[in-house]
Amino acid sequence: MTTDPVALTRRLIRCPSVTPEEGGALDLLSAELTAAGFTCIRIDRNGTPNLFARWGDRGHARTFGFNGHTDVVPVGDAGAWTMDPFGAEEAEGWLYGRGATDMKSGVAAFAAAAIDFVTATPPDGAVILAITGDEEGPARDGTVAILDWMQQAGEAMTACLVGEPTCPESFGEMMKIGRRGSLSAFFTATGVQGHVAYPHKAANPVAAMAKLVDRLASARLDAGSAHFDPSTLAVTTFDTGNPATNVIPAQCRATVNIRFNDLHDGAGLTGWLSQQMAQVAAETGIGFDMTTSLSGESFLTPPGPLVDLVARAVTAETGVTPVMSTSGGTSDARFVKDHCPVVEFGLVGHRMHQVDERVEIAQIDRLKAVYSRILTEYFDE
Amino acid sequence: MTTDPVALTRRLIRCPSVTPEEGGALDLLSAELTAAGFTCIRIDRNGTPNLFARWGDRGHARTFGFNGHTDVVPVGDAGAWTMDPFGAEEAEGWLYGRGATDMKSGVAAFAAAAIDFVTATPPDGAVILAITGDEEGPARDGTVAILDWMQQAGEAMTACLVGEPTCPESFGEMMKIGRRGSLSAFFTATGVQGHVAYPHKAANPVAAMAKLVDRLASARLDAGSAHFDPSTLAVTTFDTGNPATNVIPAQCRATVNIRFNDLHDGAGLTGWLSQQMAQVAAETGIGFDMTTSLSGESFLTPPGPLVDLVARAVTAETGVTPVMSTSGGTSDARFVKDHCPVVEFGLVGHRMHQVDERVEIAQIDRLKAVYSRILTEYFDE
Repeated sequence: MTTDPVALTRRLIRCPSVTPEEGGALDLLSAELTAAGFTCIRIDRNGTPNLFARWGDRGHARTFGFNGHTDVVPVGDAGAWTMDPFGAEEAEGWLYGRGATDMKSGVAAFAAAAIDFVTATPPDGAVILAITGDEEGPARDGTVAILDWMQQAGEAMTACLVGEPTCPESFGEMMKIGRRGSLSAFFTATGVQGHVAYPHKAANPVAAMAKLVDRLASARLDAGSAHFDPSTLAVTTFDTGNPATNVIPAQCRATVNIRFNDLHDGAGLTGWLSQQMAQVAAETGIGFDMTTSLSGESFLTPPGPLVDLVARAVTAETGVTPVMSTSGGTSDARFVKDHCPVVEFGLVGHRMHQVDERVEIAQIDRLKAVYSRILTEYFDE
Repeated sequence: MTTDPVALTRRLIRCPSVTPEEGGALDLLSAELTAAGFTCIRIDRNGTPNLFARWGDRGHARTFGFNGHTDVVPVGDAGAWTMDPFGAEEAEGWLYGRGATDMKSGVAAFAAAAIDFVTATPPDGAVILAITGDEEGPARDGTVAILDWMQQAGEAMTACLVGEPTCPESFGEMMKIGRRGSLSAFFTATGVQGHVAYPHKAANPVAAMAKLVDRLASARLDAGSAHFDPSTLAVTTFDTGNPATNVIPAQCRATVNIRFNDLHDGAGLTGWLSQQMAQVAAETGIGFDMTTSLSGESFLTPPGPLVDLVARAVTAETGVTPVMSTSGGTSDARFVKDHCPVVEFGLVGHRMHQVDERVEIAQIDRLKAVYSRILTEYFDE
């Protein structure tokens, strides 16, 4: 008897696990995995629910891990959905619901693959599932908390696959072997308020901030690297909150976000931003402050045993050679990469975070097949 | 018997005429002027109260006019005042109250001067007082409404003095013989919203707006002219209202205000702004819109009979030769200048628009003396 990943996806969708609610999703997985011989431990930190599950010996030199999340983003405009967001309804080969692709189907596929694999062909090794209830939120006490706990408890993965959706259009076309880093900088410019008729008595922070922001947005950070696109900088906010058109305001704020490749790191970019800011401050006489927030450094799992194994399995099951990409946003792979080699492969992300999020039912079985083949080949080597 | 301008100022301060409230101020003036033989007509338009008063024949070829306002800006932080803002209280030679300098004392001084002048030495000519209840507000139905009505009614001034405060520090040091123009431009930049991780799928209006604003703020409009300082451009607002740091917003807005001298006009500057905007739009691919609002063109009453007469009178009464300035904000002189030569002379503007606005009591009498001398000399020539 094998585990049906579609049925498991359906049951997970029916758990209303909008971040930070556990919604029954981790309890459900814990029960299924425990029944299959996994040791399951809830690693909750600061109210964030997380599940650690291991089959096999702790600290085995051959321990394959899967990482994923059961939390989902809010429903949004509930009236715009044609299906119940937590109903797991089906129509014309599609399964609907919040989290259908991001990423309850992914979690269900790797849980089903792991259960069947250790049951049918118990390997000389271990399989770990590290599943968080906060990937969509601040992610401070999610996968990071599991990894922290694992380190203290002598638990380790020797390779890890994150089951996030990775395919833009058709199944099998893309896997991720790294991610760009993300750095946000929050600038405040402070001048001297005054009446527009007397600009010499004021010091205008808006003009100075515009100069800084234009320079930053116009800068070319790099031309890309072997596995990465060029780094990008986007201005996301610029605000004065000044209701009067005849007043030069005393202060304004702007935010930029840099998505950077392996030619940069957070410290270097912070230094560059400070330098640019100091230059504009010197030119304009306006005072500037900056705080930064680093979501993650860029990282790359270079082509090698793990990357090749996953690519081979994808090709064998889908007939497609996956592109090895580092594009897109951030994922929890940015935390895992400090512990072991990590790659990402998953479904096509139909309507992720949008209304009528849905997954093609047949793809869930195919994803389980890819994950099963990865497990088999990993322990065969 | 002469009219006491200090007593009249006191009575006017006690009228709570915060724009757009008449507060009894125009009624009070109307009663005093009617008693002295003036024809008084309320020229109210769209709820804005205004007072027209004439002594002498309509359309006389020698008609001296005074312009001023009885409305005042709001009290602001009432708790911060040490005196009742509408109490007209006195302390150590100062008279306190909202409008004490801007400009109930000015109105009282010219009303008292005009009443005494036509009573004591009836001239061969006419004296007009055009007093509005909306100079501090939108000013759409204030002095403009009086001037519109005058034109239709065959009323005209042959010269006009606006009694606004004109002296920065000491009485007599400055008169205004013109004003800079004021043009505001409201820009909207519209791109395509997107996730910061995929900037190639978005089009960032904030970066483009920063480029435009930096260019405008860095431009040198001119080096000044014979009677004017260089024109200035100030950015007053820049807003995206985007709460998410990981989203490139679809739209942002910015406002600039130009105070321009007689080397420019509103149409020319609007053309220049459009050109700069189109250039940045072409460079960035971002859509821009602009609306403009012209508060007034710049104007100059060049040195000549009226300017000389006022300067002579100021020097005779104060011992100081007034600087002939065109500095500062706008005033209702910008409307009067289309009808007759206009200059401005008034008190030192102590704490205008601030808490504890006050006027030096002795200065009110001296101001009346200057206005009286102007009337005498105007009709003597």
